[in-house]
Amino acid sequence: MRKKIVLSAAFALSVTQMAMAAQPEKPKTRPSAEIIKAAPAGDWREIDPADLLVMTLAPDSSGKPRQVIIQLLPAPISQGWIGNMRKLAAAHWWDNGAVYRVQDNWVAQFGDPDEDTPQAKPLPSGLAKVPQSDYLLRAFAAPEYINPGRDAYAPHTGIDMGFHMAFDDSHVWPTHCYGSVGVGRNNAPDTGMGAELYAVIGTPPRQLDRNIAVVGRVIEGIEHLSSLPRAPGNGMYNDKAKNTPILSIRLGNELPPADQPHLEYLSSASASFRDYVNARVNRHDDFIIYAPGSADICNIPIPIRRKG
Amino acid sequence: MRKKIVLSAAFALSVTQMAMAAQPEKPKTRPSAEIIKAAPAGDWREIDPADLLVMTLAPDSSGKPRQVIIQLLPAPISQGWIGNMRKLAAAHWWDNGAVYRVQDNWVAQFGDPDEDTPQAKPLPSGLAKVPQSDYLLRAFAAPEYINPGRDAYAPHTGIDMGFHMAFDDSHVWPTHCYGSVGVGRNNAPDTGMGAELYAVIGTPPRQLDRNIAVVGRVIEGIEHLSSLPRAPGNGMYNDKAKNTPILSIRLGNELPPADQPHLEYLSSASASFRDYVNARVNRHDDFIIYAPGSADICNIPIPIRRKG
Repeated sequence: MRKKIVLSAAFALSVTQMAMAAQPEKPKTRPSAEIIKAAPAGDWREIDPADLLVMTLAPDSSGKPRQVIIQLLPAPISQGWIGNMRKLAAAHWWDNGAVYRVQDNWVAQFGDPDEDTPQAKPLPSGLAKVPQSDYLLRAFAAPEYINPGRDAYAPHTGIDMGFHMAFDDSHVWPTHCYGSVGVGRNNAPDTGMGAELYAVIGTPPRQLDRNIAVVGRVIEGIEHLSSLPRAPGNGMYNDKAKNTPILSIRLGNELPPADQPHLEYLSSASASFRDYVNARVNRHDDFIIYAPGSADICNIPIPIRRKG
Repeated sequence: MRKKIVLSAAFALSVTQMAMAAQPEKPKTRPSAEIIKAAPAGDWREIDPADLLVMTLAPDSSGKPRQVIIQLLPAPISQGWIGNMRKLAAAHWWDNGAVYRVQDNWVAQFGDPDEDTPQAKPLPSGLAKVPQSDYLLRAFAAPEYINPGRDAYAPHTGIDMGFHMAFDDSHVWPTHCYGSVGVGRNNAPDTGMGAELYAVIGTPPRQLDRNIAVVGRVIEGIEHLSSLPRAPGNGMYNDKAKNTPILSIRLGNELPPADQPHLEYLSSASASFRDYVNARVNRHDDFIIYAPGSADICNIPIPIRRKG
């Protein structure tokens, strides 16, 4: 009986083989890494060092340096919190702060570990109280790249100026994806100042979109946050010895010229970007046997590289 | 001018306040943690210890034990690889293996670090070569809980027997979510034996659905994999000193009775589960100002607890 089934399968296979001989095989897609590598210089956009936050953590247990680079939402899509963050960086307010909360499949949070205690570090003067309306970007424009993939959280999604976005007929807002940086706050939506920040280190928590402000995303060194030890419950270490000290956070343009990071992203308006997404969602090669044809917005990494 | 804007905003607010006084405020949702806690005993289903793989890693640098528990797809939705994994566990094949690959926002992979080298550990006899058709579950049945959220990868999604699923009109398959455990393979889809496994530690890589077999999910101790140091590129450490040794992997029912884990999940067929999902996607409380109304399938955690 077993043998018969094998024979039938062999027969079926030979029919398939004949059919394949008669019609050409579906062409293989180019590897997306190759498309990125071949993208012309004009398809890349340099990130102004003034739109970068460079966080230096204490070296790891083997003495290796740890640097995390955050790209801030640039003008004209920037929001009020980012002005506060520029002031906090210029005042060196985060220096001697810490990563004090790491919750698995959720966030790594950093700022002042004494926040909400009598020892809290005073904020510099001149910070703005940012209204709830800033959870949406101030100007409406459809993103440069519109993602055809269906989304559980918004009517439409896309990528614009190096950021994952969601939008409806009248508003655009940045989404919570892996690496997204958001502004911690208390209950009232205007209580976040931009001093306490978190980076997403798990499943995109898209339910936070429009509830907490996304102000940037980690574009280098996320592993220094995502590999930190987890704490149980809400991830607060509640033990200063477990915090990871922040040596400094600086705006990229406030670093000495030789230390300023020069990074660029693949423009979501470019043909290379469209080819890259197409090669991802329709991937067909020796390994992949099924292509979904579309992707979740957070599952379209935006290619980033060091310039030059 | 600035003052006028403030005055207008204050006026607008008072109108809103009057409107709110005239009609009752939208009721607050119960916290989902409270719904889980209040779920009657009958809404929970015990996981047969025979459907658990218990992985004991070498203690961490401070001497703390590290245990990772994987729930296997149970009968009748189990697939061929799981039979192999039972044999590998019974043969103690994974003992003295390692976690040898950790790629950020991708996977932690474990098994035989010498795989694909002349020193590779021979597999026990009697393992099945599992056909590509097993990437889909053998029997079609719509999941117990059907998720109304739109999905970029499949016509429908849901939750069944403690697992996140996707389905179309004729097939069901398990999805790649955070914590999902899959079977590493070479190019041909039937080359995965179940010896080399990976756990997802980042954005759900749903493009792997139907391309690689999902056989289970980490239900306890994922932080012991997700907080491991990352390696660059494809995440291979390529340095045995950096591997995390596996002391043992056992089926739950092969452990001494006192060590057998007794875990249960909230049945996706229960009213408590529906209430829990509803409270998540329509959350309305002192903190949340916008409820999306639906969720991505991988963003609906399946409640798990120790029994008793």
